[in-house]
Amino acid sequence: MYSFECDYLEGCHEKVLQALIDTNMIQQPGYGADSFTESAKKKIRAAAKAPEADIYFINGGTQTNQLVIDTVLASYEGVVAAETGHVAVHEAGAIEFSGHKVLTVPSHNGKVDAKEAEEYIDTFYADENHEHMVFPGMLYISHPTEYGTLYTADELKQLSALCRRHDMKLFIDGARLGYGLCAKDTDVTLPLIAELADVFYIGGTKVGALNGETVVFPKNNAPKHFVTRIKQHGALLAKGRLIGVQFDALFTDDLYLTISRHAIDKAMEVRDILKEEGFTFYLDSPTNQQFVIAENEWLKEFGKYIRTGFWEKYDDTHTVIRFATSWATTDKGMEELKRALQLCRK
Amino acid sequence: MYSFECDYLEGCHEKVLQALIDTNMIQQPGYGADSFTESAKKKIRAAAKAPEADIYFINGGTQTNQLVIDTVLASYEGVVAAETGHVAVHEAGAIEFSGHKVLTVPSHNGKVDAKEAEEYIDTFYADENHEHMVFPGMLYISHPTEYGTLYTADELKQLSALCRRHDMKLFIDGARLGYGLCAKDTDVTLPLIAELADVFYIGGTKVGALNGETVVFPKNNAPKHFVTRIKQHGALLAKGRLIGVQFDALFTDDLYLTISRHAIDKAMEVRDILKEEGFTFYLDSPTNQQFVIAENEWLKEFGKYIRTGFWEKYDDTHTVIRFATSWATTDKGMEELKRALQLCRK
Amino acid sequence: MYSFECDYLEGCHEKVLQALIDTNMIQQPGYGADSFTESAKKKIRAAAKAPEADIYFINGGTQTNQLVIDTVLASYEGVVAAETGHVAVHEAGAIEFSGHKVLTVPSHNGKVDAKEAEEYIDTFYADENHEHMVFPGMLYISHPTEYGTLYTADELKQLSALCRRHDMKLFIDGARLGYGLCAKDTDVTLPLIAELADVFYIGGTKVGALNGETVVFPKNNAPKHFVTRIKQHGALLAKGRLIGVQFDALFTDDLYLTISRHAIDKAMEVRDILKEEGFTFYLDSPTNQQFVIAENEWLKEFGKYIRTGFWEKYDDTHTVIRFATSWATTDKGMEELKRALQLCRK
Amino acid sequence: MYSFECDYLEGCHEKVLQALIDTNMIQQPGYGADSFTESAKKKIRAAAKAPEADIYFINGGTQTNQLVIDTVLASYEGVVAAETGHVAVHEAGAIEFSGHKVLTVPSHNGKVDAKEAEEYIDTFYADENHEHMVFPGMLYISHPTEYGTLYTADELKQLSALCRRHDMKLFIDGARLGYGLCAKDTDVTLPLIAELADVFYIGGTKVGALNGETVVFPKNNAPKHFVTRIKQHGALLAKGRLIGVQFDALFTDDLYLTISRHAIDKAMEVRDILKEEGFTFYLDSPTNQQFVIAENEWLKEFGKYIRTGFWEKYDDTHTVIRFATSWATTDKGMEELKRALQLCRK
Repeated sequence: MYSFECDYLEGCHEKVLQALIDTNMIQQPGYGADSFTESAKKKIRAAAKAPEADIYFINGGTQTNQLVIDTVLASYEGVVAAETGHVAVHEAGAIEFSGHKVLTVPSHNGKVDAKEAEEYIDTFYADENHEHMVFPGMLYISHPTEYGTLYTADELKQLSALCRRHDMKLFIDGARLGYGLCAKDTDVTLPLIAELADVFYIGGTKVGALNGETVVFPKNNAPKHFVTRIKQHGALLAKGRLIGVQFDALFTDDLYLTISRHAIDKAMEVRDILKEEGFTFYLDSPTNQQFVIAENEWLKEFGKYIRTGFWEKYDDTHTVIRFATSWATTDKGMEELKRALQLCRK
Repeated sequence: MYSFECDYLEGCHEKVLQALIDTNMIQQPGYGADSFTESAKKKIRAAAKAPEADIYFINGGTQTNQLVIDTVLASYEGVVAAETGHVAVHEAGAIEFSGHKVLTVPSHNGKVDAKEAEEYIDTFYADENHEHMVFPGMLYISHPTEYGTLYTADELKQLSALCRRHDMKLFIDGARLGYGLCAKDTDVTLPLIAELADVFYIGGTKVGALNGETVVFPKNNAPKHFVTRIKQHGALLAKGRLIGVQFDALFTDDLYLTISRHAIDKAMEVRDILKEEGFTFYLDSPTNQQFVIAENEWLKEFGKYIRTGFWEKYDDTHTVIRFATSWATTDKGMEELKRALQLCRK
Repeated sequence: MYSFECDYLEGCHEKVLQALIDTNMIQQPGYGADSFTESAKKKIRAAAKAPEADIYFINGGTQTNQLVIDTVLASYEGVVAAETGHVAVHEAGAIEFSGHKVLTVPSHNGKVDAKEAEEYIDTFYADENHEHMVFPGMLYISHPTEYGTLYTADELKQLSALCRRHDMKLFIDGARLGYGLCAKDTDVTLPLIAELADVFYIGGTKVGALNGETVVFPKNNAPKHFVTRIKQHGALLAKGRLIGVQFDALFTDDLYLTISRHAIDKAMEVRDILKEEGFTFYLDSPTNQQFVIAENEWLKEFGKYIRTGFWEKYDDTHTVIRFATSWATTDKGMEELKRALQLCRK
Repeated sequence: MYSFECDYLEGCHEKVLQALIDTNMIQQPGYGADSFTESAKKKIRAAAKAPEADIYFINGGTQTNQLVIDTVLASYEGVVAAETGHVAVHEAGAIEFSGHKVLTVPSHNGKVDAKEAEEYIDTFYADENHEHMVFPGMLYISHPTEYGTLYTADELKQLSALCRRHDMKLFIDGARLGYGLCAKDTDVTLPLIAELADVFYIGGTKVGALNGETVVFPKNNAPKHFVTRIKQHGALLAKGRLIGVQFDALFTDDLYLTISRHAIDKAMEVRDILKEEGFTFYLDSPTNQQFVIAENEWLKEFGKYIRTGFWEKYDDTHTVIRFATSWATTDKGMEELKRALQLCRK
């Protein structure tokens, strides 16, 4: 049975695996002082056109969000996020665990609206009691969002300018960044992100790696003693090479973008197939996650052939389901999908 | 210039002050082991008809909320509150500082609706990803609410039953509890609160004391080693007697209720005066806080004679202001209010 | 039965009480914006010859220590203290609760030795793995120490210089500061402390007040948004006036020093009485705490007449006990002590 | 240049790598719900003779220590450890970051003495002020210790009994557990550890895996909602399979023990070589870490050929250095060591 449940169903891309194989018995120092990590950093700085970037490799997305938010914010500051943002809903309170409040603004298919965010901030500072409230110290957005949607370059510039105006930091969660950068018609590039964000991360776990995310402080602006703070968060890998090797491979010969493009191509195929079958889409996503509204009865049958992700209840007889493609999606998977749709005609 | 800005403008009630004077030079052990504290506890247990209650005296409201929520909840649990709740908005992130998320539901003039709260909880448990989310472990309500409104006995019973059903704790913030218990037509009593809540507090700072709140775990259900945890929060008073003496006085001869009634009487006077002047009330409050919508221009003039509390911006030309009465509100204050209204005819 | 158990057995000094009585019904804004607080700050700045000092009033000692250490330190920093320091032993982990490690150095009757502290710091920075360890960010000392001992001006200067050299902050816990300033032969003054420390506090709870400590950042160097951080710690008093009024009284006409001197005089009397009786002193204390080694059998008898503080087990048949005097110690107390000693001749 | 600097210099054992290659493209659900993880758990339960064990896979050692200590302890409890324990010194305050104090007892070559630990605990409970102190809630030991030393079965039984007597938990840090289990003459087995400990972990990072530690709660005694708490700590791997696959391989056909034995054999060879050369050993270690005292001048020369770990300054002219072997140590490495010793004759 083929699964489109999520984008972390397989191990890693074959070239990443090969790099792990090739380097396996080479002795290297720990804690990120290895030469693979150094090489990966250089390539990423080049790709992001951010020669001064401070770069760190962290094990996973929630770990990264918790670490970045906690170390960049002052204690009296919280992070502004869409009410559907990963940090707001799906991290089991990891942000609060490290002492910070998530301040929510409305979500527009996962996106934050610059005007609404500014209103939130203006209202905060206009409140005579704001010294008794949590200061907005950072804006957190994900690109692509949890709903697969994308910001335009213009929207990102507005959000960045907004942060500048209010002395806030802009943090971009790029757990699926590759799938955003390779979407059709996007005008957002990695260098643009490095220009606009104070800190962002390039997701590996969902884009070709076994594990690992690259945290980038593009202007040599990592918090002081950041390695110590990673350690304090329990997030410092003894074998830092594990992620270093993988990102070194991912940023060799544009592999990161190449495999991301594959996922987008497959997602568009899935979209076309589903559209042809007459499915109603929950929203319009240009990236690797496609959301459709399915009848529960039909879903029971379909679920015998294809696994999809439960997203949310739509109404008493329908459910929003997610089809996620990835670097690993195979032609065989596409065939199985088509066959299943034929078998379970609506 | 008389002030109706809030209900903590003066020191303490004269009988409370007298008790402090009378006991001042009596030697007593520290940290709440004094005889005044013991006496106060007995009187409060009697008043609440909760003979098994564990009782502690804490310095202020935010301190108490932070302490209770942190010590009663498991680490993976958050507290459900109205989106206008004090813990959600006006404690500078004190709840998150101790690691817990505030999970918000809609506010109805400050009140939580039992149905909406249950929907929130049902949706949480129905979500297949809820292991990645913050568990609702407690319901926080304030009585009176931050808007001066009150729950009925029936509503409290529903909320309490809801908590029982979902293995949650019910915590009632009683910063202004006296003003709730003495409102006209309320059917909520102190023993009822002790019956329905897992933990609540009886506010002193706003009701006749210099400082101090009484935390009550009505069924001998204080968290283990609670004194150590108070100390760990930095909240253990060396001179525990300070609050003990005051609550001993407040719970002698029904003083707490008597002085609360005074505040309600004065609030109803204020209401009548303002109604007669044709003011639009922001909401209908039966307690010591009265909210009206005032024109900004008029307010500038009026503010020269009477101080009121800024509540929130209403529209570009109007502001919601608060008139708070208390145990300390004087007849002279009422006269000054009337005079000011005459001087600043709308 | 008279008690020398500790120095917080009574309420407050009569002049402090009188100030509370006199100001009781004067309306004032909350959260420290009242005029009494303002007046107290001015007087303290003058007394400390620190015209630029940022001053805040906090409820108690552990609260203050937790607040200051947490807000002054970076997250990766810990506080260096004597292994017997209050923050290291007797605050139920309040410092760790807010995320910081207490790094201990040997105690010399409660005091930190500058050389040993420097060795600790040098060893830390010489360790090639120190990025995996907690950085020493602050030196905490108490003056007088928990053992009643005092630093000389010279010793304080050395510790201050040490902090300067290593980019650390010097924090002086002055829970009993008055008793230190008024000791015979001390050359440490309040202005000297304000000159040498980055932050210190002037204890009220043990020196004439019902409650309250004055935190002083002498060079206009309070952490940013300090009021918000006090609130976040649950430590912001609604009726800030309560402590403001008391410190205003304590710093009027040198009351703080006058009543401290009284305690020292009484302590010296106690010392003479005990010496005459042939007691062995545990250590030599020039302040209000006197420690003697008592036989357990004798202590049982003596304890029927006079209450003293258990300090620590000395050996199987002896205990170290503490006699604490204070601003409140009476002549009657001294008489009872003498009588008890006659009744329980060793 | 060959390195004996630490035991995490290479990637992973070839059989572990092969398992990653073989399973790479097999689709599996995330967050530890994959079949490899399930298989690994079964094998570990069998190896530990703990059929009821709750098992979780975590990314690294500090992460694991922080997670276990924080979730097993109550807030008012701290963890007792040797003053040289990893949690006490080398985790950048990760334990305090999550709110808990590390309570230290003397270290005997890294080991905790049961009598001294009991004394610590007895002294704590005998102290009349212990409610103002941090309760000892857990005993942390490492086996092997940070100094390569081992407990005997008898010593472990005493420590376990001690914990039972005082209602404390016994936590064994097994970052190098394999190297302890395979040491000559040890009578400690994995089932014995599962019998005596409340929680322990089996290290992978240092024993053949790319990353990963297995946390074992042997008696079905994991903290409630442990997955949520892992997530809250930022420690939940999306691709749980990554560690599951590796431990499945490590616990197939006794691979974990076989490769550990290799490290011990190599360590004994290193020991013999160094002894023959007349080196003074810092202590006697039966495991994969060997510590010798080296002259600084000699070390400069030797360091051109062989890399070793700096352990600590011995005196002004000597340094304690560590030779660590591992599952990966090669014969070529041994030859290089011998050659280097010949070249740098002392």
